[in-house]
Amino acid sequence: MQNSLRPAADSPTGPRAHASGRTEQLFGIRRHAAMPERDGALNPAAFEAGPWCLDLDGRPTGAAATVIMDNATAVAVHHAAPGVETVVTTELQINVLAPLPAFDAAAITEGRTEGPLLECWTRPLSWDAGGGVGRAWLEDAEGRRIVEATGWFQAVPTGAPENRAAFTAAAALPRGPETRVPMPGLLAARPETLPPADRAVRPAVTAAVAPGARFAPKPELANPSGAVHGGAMTLRAVVAAQAAMPDRELYDVQAVRVVFTRPGHGEMVALTRVRHAGRSLRLVDVDLVPVGEDGAPVAEKPMVQVQVTFRAAR
Amino acid sequence: MQNSLRPAADSPTGPRAHASGRTEQLFGIRRHAAMPERDGALNPAAFEAGPWCLDLDGRPTGAAATVIMDNATAVAVHHAAPGVETVVTTELQINVLAPLPAFDAAAITEGRTEGPLLECWTRPLSWDAGGGVGRAWLEDAEGRRIVEATGWFQAVPTGAPENRAAFTAAAALPRGPETRVPMPGLLAARPETLPPADRAVRPAVTAAVAPGARFAPKPELANPSGAVHGGAMTLRAVVAAQAAMPDRELYDVQAVRVVFTRPGHGEMVALTRVRHAGRSLRLVDVDLVPVGEDGAPVAEKPMVQVQVTFRAAR
Repeated sequence: MQNSLRPAADSPTGPRAHASGRTEQLFGIRRHAAMPERDGALNPAAFEAGPWCLDLDGRPTGAAATVIMDNATAVAVHHAAPGVETVVTTELQINVLAPLPAFDAAAITEGRTEGPLLECWTRPLSWDAGGGVGRAWLEDAEGRRIVEATGWFQAVPTGAPENRAAFTAAAALPRGPETRVPMPGLLAARPETLPPADRAVRPAVTAAVAPGARFAPKPELANPSGAVHGGAMTLRAVVAAQAAMPDRELYDVQAVRVVFTRPGHGEMVALTRVRHAGRSLRLVDVDLVPVGEDGAPVAEKPMVQVQVTFRAAR
Repeated sequence: MQNSLRPAADSPTGPRAHASGRTEQLFGIRRHAAMPERDGALNPAAFEAGPWCLDLDGRPTGAAATVIMDNATAVAVHHAAPGVETVVTTELQINVLAPLPAFDAAAITEGRTEGPLLECWTRPLSWDAGGGVGRAWLEDAEGRRIVEATGWFQAVPTGAPENRAAFTAAAALPRGPETRVPMPGLLAARPETLPPADRAVRPAVTAAVAPGARFAPKPELANPSGAVHGGAMTLRAVVAAQAAMPDRELYDVQAVRVVFTRPGHGEMVALTRVRHAGRSLRLVDVDLVPVGEDGAPVAEKPMVQVQVTFRAAR
């Protein structure tokens, strides 16, 4: 596996075509027409902070950058490995380093203003013909890193052209006020499965998983292969992890790690397990699994396996 | 939380005292007397590759760098946050980007040669009075990154001086041939709990955990607080994750994520669960838990909760 700390002037990081779809549009990705390069890192897009960064309690979280982090790390690997046509994410790690810049959610929803932009940078860390690993991050105007991610990718055969066409077409859907809303709505979370927050109730640590948040099918969230976008899958798991903690308003997402095991399709239910519930640190496991014909979760067919850590809010 | 993409000339990254113990010595940390700085990153030590990088089947793995990655990310946060005296790791993510340089294990054990060195660099990513997050990596002579890590830390009260004295004293123990051996021995793994490898046997994916590798108490592995060093705890979990996969020789460690929930003390047993066993990707969960008076694992008191991903060996 070839790799590089500081891709040199001859590193193969020139722009290659990357299709963008509806999920990218909904979750704040604002692509640049050209891709600036700095010290071997690429700047394919900016991230617009906005209502799509609000969690199930209306609190902003940098975890919302998961979609752009998944895409940007893929861009880095894709550009570094010229023989690789199509990649799938096998694992994604997101670290939320600092709060997002403030924004006026109501004004953005009403179309009176746009959200603040964070530039997205990415660089390949290591790659070969079979795939690779890349780093991406969002930085503010002062160069501070707000969110960082590491993404692992495998080369796969290119999917059916009709899925790609549907993906691209969905990106042309209108971006009306109904698309400028908090994360759970964009992710098609079923509201009746999201319990209210209660700062007085600490979650129970259990050995067994419990069914939690559910998500309706939403074709707009498809990736170019026709499955649900990996970034959207990850965000669904983050929402489900939060929903499993009644006192979640006292905690911020620290880091998210997702392993992609099967393509995401159809109605999904989160099987959650609070593994640690300390005062300063939390660990919640989430598997997103399909729903069987009898309406029960199919635990043995997880589509993503996710662990979310939280730290005390500051 | 203050943070920085590129610590400037006035960033508080000057050297501060960092004690080094036996675990550091056993796992390849070769500290520099001075700490070079480059673009805001610090170079506190080099990592010597050697027999301590060999896993339970005698195969080298970059995961062995976990001890230096834990230390180095702590150094970065410690130096960035001048008011923070003592930190504990809450979460550590290790990515193994490329194979280690080749070494002659037998010659190193016999003291006829030393192993190849990889320089260890680290930089703070974000910090405040309560803790922070840092990045560390090992690079080879060509500047290629071989292993990378992200560490999250919390500020804590400084521990008892007698523990710190024992920690420092242990670093003065002789580094004889018995210390230049594969990882399981250094970690005090009980050999009878490490089943032989079998490339023909794929592990079963299960919903329940199973007891796996066991580890004997080993005071040499203490950190300055008197608990087992976080890097050694993590490596024990890596060995246990490998032990849970009979066909492990077909796979390399891709990434390790560990969450530190309780101080590590005494006899430990790994409760393992293979969560995904695909051809190209594996996910194994490991909790290291104490052993009760009846000899049974105490599942509800995990000291670390670890997830290890593996990818097909290349």
